[in-house]
Amino acid sequence: MTKQFEQDLDILKQTLLRMAAKAESMIHYSIQELVQRNPELAVEIPTLEEDVNSLQLEVDDRASKLLALRQPMAHDLRFIIAAMKISSDLERIADQAINITQNTRILLLYPEVKPLIDIPKMAEISKQMLRDALDAFVQGDAAKARDVVMRDDQVDHLKSEVIRELEAMMMTDPTIIKPSLQLVLVARNLERIADHATNIAEDVVYLVEAKDIRHHAEEKEHR
Amino acid sequence: MTKQFEQDLDILKQTLLRMAAKAESMIHYSIQELVQRNPELAVEIPTLEEDVNSLQLEVDDRASKLLALRQPMAHDLRFIIAAMKISSDLERIADQAINITQNTRILLLYPEVKPLIDIPKMAEISKQMLRDALDAFVQGDAAKARDVVMRDDQVDHLKSEVIRELEAMMMTDPTIIKPSLQLVLVARNLERIADHATNIAEDVVYLVEAKDIRHHAEEKEHR
Repeated sequence: MTKQFEQDLDILKQTLLRMAAKAESMIHYSIQELVQRNPELAVEIPTLEEDVNSLQLEVDDRASKLLALRQPMAHDLRFIIAAMKISSDLERIADQAINITQNTRILLLYPEVKPLIDIPKMAEISKQMLRDALDAFVQGDAAKARDVVMRDDQVDHLKSEVIRELEAMMMTDPTIIKPSLQLVLVARNLERIADHATNIAEDVVYLVEAKDIRHHAEEKEHR
Repeated sequence: MTKQFEQDLDILKQTLLRMAAKAESMIHYSIQELVQRNPELAVEIPTLEEDVNSLQLEVDDRASKLLALRQPMAHDLRFIIAAMKISSDLERIADQAINITQNTRILLLYPEVKPLIDIPKMAEISKQMLRDALDAFVQGDAAKARDVVMRDDQVDHLKSEVIRELEAMMMTDPTIIKPSLQLVLVARNLERIADHATNIAEDVVYLVEAKDIRHHAEEKEHR
């Protein structure tokens, strides 16, 4: 591998890490706005979203050029393909964070339904999953990536809890239906964010082990 | 381009088309089950999902091998990258259809809330968007792809209508909260399906015109 190619791959990696940090901040601020009922906490989100979108175009552009000019093989090829997939998941995480702020804006038109406990917990787990998936990517650590995949169930479980609790509350007091519905949608957004972190972790396993663990591909033949 | 390479690209295209047809059937059957309140209409869905998952692995595998062995340039390179992105969107559409059946199973535990009109309409538009996006891909038709992107707003608008109407109904009759909540989630699923069809259409524009229309990239510089 030439020194220039090595540098190019490193720039690609750094670009993805910057993108991931911004996506994570978007989750953080959107949930803070919701929990503290304070729209000022979300003021940075539109700029962050623009940054994430620009960085996605940059990752795809750099990756395409490397594919065209360097004709990489084996691990380098998988690395570049993984970078494009990861950038797509990060962009969708940012979309979900935007969606959380949209749901929150409606919710803040109404009085507080309840102090939020499980939703911030979902957000914490999801952010940690995202962080660990990116660490696993940088370190080429398949074990860490598999650990992220395992944690997806925790978030799914919390989402079901949130929905069950809100349903019961709405049935007792129909005046809280509109804001409660927004909380259900936010729980769904966080579930999707955890799904995207899981996708990233699966891509890391593929990158490191050249083995596809999506859809239990390890256990079955596909041709 | 060698004859063999041409054939390989054609197989990749055919594999994607088979995958898209199966994803579309999954949307169709999941919504039929919901509208007609008949779980038998969804019996083929688990097999279809397995097929979609296997086809995604197959597309990625074929695409990676072509990148490694053929070192394609320009349009061929973009075609292979687009194929991988499209397969990822198709797999996520299939996931959303699975989610619709899960929401429907809960909904069917309760009496009918109302005859469904806007939800099947959302499903029809989304399926047509998906079909047109794939046609645009096969025909290399950027105008058709841009038309798909334009139609995303219709689905978003219908989703807002569905939620507004269900909110009003739940407030009048709290006993319908649980099934209504599932309908809200199905409307969200269909909105996501239309988003994925839009992503595919954007990839087609990039493939045909070597121009990235995501995030209005046409209007701004990203570096």
